[in-house]
Amino acid sequence: MKIAVTGKGGVGKTTLAGTLAVILSEKYKVYAIDADPDMNLAGSLGIHQSITPISKMKDLIKERTGAEPGSSFGEVFKMNPTISDLPESLSTDYGPEGNLKILVMGTVDKGGDGCVCPASVMLKAILRNLIIKKDEMVILDMEAGIEHLGRRTAEAVDVMIIVAEPGLKSLETASRIKKLATDIGIQNVVAVINKVSSDREEEFVEEKLGEIGLDILGSIPRDDLVVKADMEGHPLVNYPNSVALQSVVKIAENLLNQGASN
Amino acid sequence: MKIAVTGKGGVGKTTLAGTLAVILSEKYKVYAIDADPDMNLAGSLGIHQSITPISKMKDLIKERTGAEPGSSFGEVFKMNPTISDLPESLSTDYGPEGNLKILVMGTVDKGGDGCVCPASVMLKAILRNLIIKKDEMVILDMEAGIEHLGRRTAEAVDVMIIVAEPGLKSLETASRIKKLATDIGIQNVVAVINKVSSDREEEFVEEKLGEIGLDILGSIPRDDLVVKADMEGHPLVNYPNSVALQSVVKIAENLLNQGASN
Repeated sequence: MKIAVTGKGGVGKTTLAGTLAVILSEKYKVYAIDADPDMNLAGSLGIHQSITPISKMKDLIKERTGAEPGSSFGEVFKMNPTISDLPESLSTDYGPEGNLKILVMGTVDKGGDGCVCPASVMLKAILRNLIIKKDEMVILDMEAGIEHLGRRTAEAVDVMIIVAEPGLKSLETASRIKKLATDIGIQNVVAVINKVSSDREEEFVEEKLGEIGLDILGSIPRDDLVVKADMEGHPLVNYPNSVALQSVVKIAENLLNQGASN
Repeated sequence: MKIAVTGKGGVGKTTLAGTLAVILSEKYKVYAIDADPDMNLAGSLGIHQSITPISKMKDLIKERTGAEPGSSFGEVFKMNPTISDLPESLSTDYGPEGNLKILVMGTVDKGGDGCVCPASVMLKAILRNLIIKKDEMVILDMEAGIEHLGRRTAEAVDVMIIVAEPGLKSLETASRIKKLATDIGIQNVVAVINKVSSDREEEFVEEKLGEIGLDILGSIPRDDLVVKADMEGHPLVNYPNSVALQSVVKIAENLLNQGASN
């Protein structure tokens, strides 16, 4: 299964994507890809070493094979269509078991160097041509907002999760994402509610998501331990008392049940 | 003065930019530009009608003059270098006085339509060629993260404000923005701390911002009225008891004093 986590900036995409990745890695081989140029997925899992981005993969292939990949990266990747064919040096392991590998799309190395369109094109091609085995999961932590939907970066995912919080801004973004995702043919778009402080807030968001036509995969309460984890630079799974963590465990179950019923 | 508000997604860029714009419009003619394709500046000020984006300006000029602007939009704009030359239809007034005009850069209208690079190029050219009068202010609400610094969208601003909150993720983004802004020659980069719940949190962020080499323009406490304003779709200035609002008033003063001392 290929999953993309999307939403307005700051709604908790990275916390959800990273925590889901760790939880799912107990049963699956998980590849978590940070598709945000302002990357912080690895950092949120406590990994602070730098990771060679996928956008540098052309150079790696050239180094290894001597061949210059053509302009269509997709064609190159069709020859190596499983994710385990990706060069080892493009990922970093989380935990000792090697069941969770972190990859990053690419970033802006220098001010004025241009946009991340080339890196997005490469990631899109990989996702489109990738054959995912039954025991494998790919989780994409998307950039904030909607530009990735103009670029179709995540068009090949099986599920797109939109994270929303109590507030009209994140719900407007959710509505835009749902519309744009439908434009590019993504069938399965669902929502997760985050940072809920009261029943009233949850009902408010539920009602708005219903109007947008989004099914809700689960709801996560506001939890000071999420702020604490971010300040301490540790993954949320290190805080077993976190109510947010317990909600993400349920969301992982719902995601797998949903996947099984599709 | 041209000001850009930047930072990680969800740190409160739009709330700060919009509230600053309203406060400054008591003394200045303010042009607030939403430079985020996932736009919500107008909405956060309670304006829900759609605004023709600057990215459609070429079409407007062609309609009005019959002339087809060349590929370099900057050259066209050099002939009309004051912001009041911008077609009226590109902005919407906030309040009855007409001292605050809201503009939007452009968005992704349809999934798969591509990136917002063309819209960014147009905004960059406008900002570069714009002559700002003494009684005018331009406030840019930038997209989340760092890609706009690859595109140099805001390279012509006088001040870049980076908003950070208690947490390593937004501080990592602040560090990246500071570095990339320096790459493209922005001299005056300062920070605002937002969503502070305790002295300990404020000290934590202050220390990290000091390490990055950022002066702090002001600090805004966590305030439930900000969430309430977002849920009700009203501007924060409608809640005079808001402690966050009172902090932004002080930040506006600091900004003007800083501008005067430069």
